[in-house]
Amino acid sequence: MALSLGELAVRFGCELRGDPQRRVEHVATLANADANSLAFLANPHYRPQLKTTRAAAVVLDAREARECPVPMLVSDNPYATYARMAALLHPAPPARAGVHPTAQVSPGAHLDPSAEIGALVTIGAGVTVGARSYIGAHCHLDDGVTVAEDARLMARVTLCRGVRVGARVVIHPGAVIGADGFGFAPERGTWLKVPQLGSVQLGADVEVGANTTIDRGAIDDTVIEEGVKLDNLIQIGHNVRIGAHTVLAACCGISGSASIGKRCMLGGSVGVNGHISICDDVAITGASSVTHSITRPGVYSGTLPFEEARVWRRLVARFKRSDALEARVKKLEQAAALKAAQQEDHDDHE
Amino acid sequence: MALSLGELAVRFGCELRGDPQRRVEHVATLANADANSLAFLANPHYRPQLKTTRAAAVVLDAREARECPVPMLVSDNPYATYARMAALLHPAPPARAGVHPTAQVSPGAHLDPSAEIGALVTIGAGVTVGARSYIGAHCHLDDGVTVAEDARLMARVTLCRGVRVGARVVIHPGAVIGADGFGFAPERGTWLKVPQLGSVQLGADVEVGANTTIDRGAIDDTVIEEGVKLDNLIQIGHNVRIGAHTVLAACCGISGSASIGKRCMLGGSVGVNGHISICDDVAITGASSVTHSITRPGVYSGTLPFEEARVWRRLVARFKRSDALEARVKKLEQAAALKAAQQEDHDDHE
Amino acid sequence: MALSLGELAVRFGCELRGDPQRRVEHVATLANADANSLAFLANPHYRPQLKTTRAAAVVLDAREARECPVPMLVSDNPYATYARMAALLHPAPPARAGVHPTAQVSPGAHLDPSAEIGALVTIGAGVTVGARSYIGAHCHLDDGVTVAEDARLMARVTLCRGVRVGARVVIHPGAVIGADGFGFAPERGTWLKVPQLGSVQLGADVEVGANTTIDRGAIDDTVIEEGVKLDNLIQIGHNVRIGAHTVLAACCGISGSASIGKRCMLGGSVGVNGHISICDDVAITGASSVTHSITRPGVYSGTLPFEEARVWRRLVARFKRSDALEARVKKLEQAAALKAAQQEDHDDHE
Repeated sequence: MALSLGELAVRFGCELRGDPQRRVEHVATLANADANSLAFLANPHYRPQLKTTRAAAVVLDAREARECPVPMLVSDNPYATYARMAALLHPAPPARAGVHPTAQVSPGAHLDPSAEIGALVTIGAGVTVGARSYIGAHCHLDDGVTVAEDARLMARVTLCRGVRVGARVVIHPGAVIGADGFGFAPERGTWLKVPQLGSVQLGADVEVGANTTIDRGAIDDTVIEEGVKLDNLIQIGHNVRIGAHTVLAACCGISGSASIGKRCMLGGSVGVNGHISICDDVAITGASSVTHSITRPGVYSGTLPFEEARVWRRLVARFKRSDALEARVKKLEQAAALKAAQQEDHDDHE
Repeated sequence: MALSLGELAVRFGCELRGDPQRRVEHVATLANADANSLAFLANPHYRPQLKTTRAAAVVLDAREARECPVPMLVSDNPYATYARMAALLHPAPPARAGVHPTAQVSPGAHLDPSAEIGALVTIGAGVTVGARSYIGAHCHLDDGVTVAEDARLMARVTLCRGVRVGARVVIHPGAVIGADGFGFAPERGTWLKVPQLGSVQLGADVEVGANTTIDRGAIDDTVIEEGVKLDNLIQIGHNVRIGAHTVLAACCGISGSASIGKRCMLGGSVGVNGHISICDDVAITGASSVTHSITRPGVYSGTLPFEEARVWRRLVARFKRSDALEARVKKLEQAAALKAAQQEDHDDHE
Repeated sequence: MALSLGELAVRFGCELRGDPQRRVEHVATLANADANSLAFLANPHYRPQLKTTRAAAVVLDAREARECPVPMLVSDNPYATYARMAALLHPAPPARAGVHPTAQVSPGAHLDPSAEIGALVTIGAGVTVGARSYIGAHCHLDDGVTVAEDARLMARVTLCRGVRVGARVVIHPGAVIGADGFGFAPERGTWLKVPQLGSVQLGADVEVGANTTIDRGAIDDTVIEEGVKLDNLIQIGHNVRIGAHTVLAACCGISGSASIGKRCMLGGSVGVNGHISICDDVAITGASSVTHSITRPGVYSGTLPFEEARVWRRLVARFKRSDALEARVKKLEQAAALKAAQQEDHDDHE
């Protein structure tokens, strides 16, 4: 699809600096753009590429406009504006209404006629799939699952018994929603399985990354509120609640019964202990371990930056000897106090 | 299923304090229980909810009895007792004997007639599935796999060639058991694949979480002994051995040829280096890196707790300057020694 | 297959010390070898097992020869030599040309007649599969995917739209290649999805572990160069580039737009921040966080070794009080300077 810069400016409320008849056909990075490309600048890291870009036009903030050698679409939020334009230029294929002949659908499932059910999908008893939803190849929707309208399960998604998925949710391949939580009672040196009887609720506009796992609640449900975005390979334990519009980068692990507030941002590989609470509007930098509750909005960290190995080994050695160092300082303090006392004594006797 | 408190007390050896005719229909949390609910208290974290619960009855320890406003089932191990009662109130559906018409079963597979083989399951040559085992939809059992009796492969489980699964094992969706270990020999700047010729043995009563991976041995087998419980998204490298009744929380990574003893407990995201041993009865707190063998039972840790980012940055700066601090202390010590010597000298001359 | 030591020595260029007629049938570890076994010694950790081995022959380095009680195949690179011999003794089954009747192949797919397409595989429009490639059961190749010759997708591999896979690539079960990158633009307190329009390229001889995820690029492709080996449960974000012959151990997380050089080695659970570069020939020890670019080849670390919990708690307390310790040292320095000044003053007045 080709669109003129004039059309884009009007449709997305940008200020156009350049020829409104100029047309763009696809998006590109600043570095690789050609004369039919729409590019954008939102991360200052890529500013050096602006001066030499050959894009037909660049979406950017007014402050970057001076350096731009080609037509511009000026926006207060260039990344979001770019996202909307990219979605218009490269639309996702619409759902093709109907059930693939190889899909296995249990009697009593309610599939909206506008939904697309892909090849080799399995659909259990009492499942509901809403209007225009796309259930990709190899997905498994167990008994009692509900998927609302306009959801997209890309392929090979597993929704265990009774899981409820909100409108416009996107789930990537390999994600497992609603497997048993990790609940075992210790008993005479072995572990007794505790039945996991709750389920999982995903609110509207949630996105779940590839191979991410969200366990069902032990009794009540695990709840992911609307607009939450989960990257790949994340573990969400049973009974967890994640507040609206919170984002978790890849490889995070959230232990059972933890509660995370709204609009939080967790970097990659952050771990959160069980049974603790994180309030709204908290950011946690990558690889930190959240070992106790956070009650005040803010930015939190807990990871040591790396060093060359030989430097690191010395730092570790110092760390391990920190007790000894404190003891040495204490001795110096005592000696100084003694010396001070002696000095006073000495002065008195002069 | 509804059960009277009297029946429950007799069946599970509890002391009943309350009306034996009172009936419960389902389990609930203390906070959300209604007049038909059985609740429990095992984690003191939830003690505040006890006073206001509306449960029909609560399973708890005698020490908590005083605060309980409703009928009680008193148990020495309330969590385990609750688990048994919950399993009775909410039984898992039994296997429905038979092979789904869409399952692909190779000639020469031995499937017990009481086993349930689900939709779109693939079963290779020489596979054995034992009595009453449940093989859920989309599972793949490659050639030579053995599954003992009463196992439950929930859905979409991959058992690679020759994997052996014990009785009553539970495996959650997306788990991959028996993929090649990560074995490559360096040769002139490239990596030569080392054939991975062993397999994997899962002992009786093992549970494996969603999307967890357990690699086949390079030559001998990778062995997970009986009663081991593995949470989601765990990586077990080739040739690893995990001792009976050990539990690993989510996101742990156990490198090749490591050996973990019996009755150990690893918190989430613990890493264990290759070729090391951890003895029996070791607990390791979350996110620690186990870089050398552990030969003494006990509790081990290695993770720094987080701080507000501005506090953390200062702590990191101090850590990185710990060399300089030690040097300053040494100088003070030398100065003090000098001063001491001077003082002695001074005293001698007086 | 049985082979004589003489044949092995000639074929793989080893020096044979022992009877060339002696035959081996399979490989074994030094500890478990029997009279028909070929064993090897490459890791000094296993040297103690050499003296008591009952193998028919051992592949080893000349420096280990003295301790070996059985026939030897002496090699400069015993691990690589062993790998080749093991592959000869235990060959992988060849692809059985043809398409399984349950595979779903879209019209317009180009499948080489020598390729094997397994049970319940789904193949989208415009897919190409090269000569002798093996596409295992339950794999999903979305529209526009290209797989070159001699590739092996073991089972249940997901290749999303347009992914390109090089010759001799091996991909293990559960891997997801080409799911959407994690791109969302913040807008008025919510997150707007940024279309992920690039794809993924895997070079020749790449290996991808079980349940590993490699996201498609946002605009350009995510690129894994030839010979890269990725272990299980690794996350590769969008737009990442990994240089030829680099290896990543399990559970690493590489954030979006990071670039890793050639011949690097990352230990398990290493995290790499987004938009940074690591140069060629860098090794990073397990569980380190790479928070800024590395421009010099070498070995880097950033993980504290664990301790017994009671020791660890004291170390953490010291770390958290490091500010106070520095202040105490400063005070001592000031006092010492003062004392020095006083002493000078005192000396002057004597």
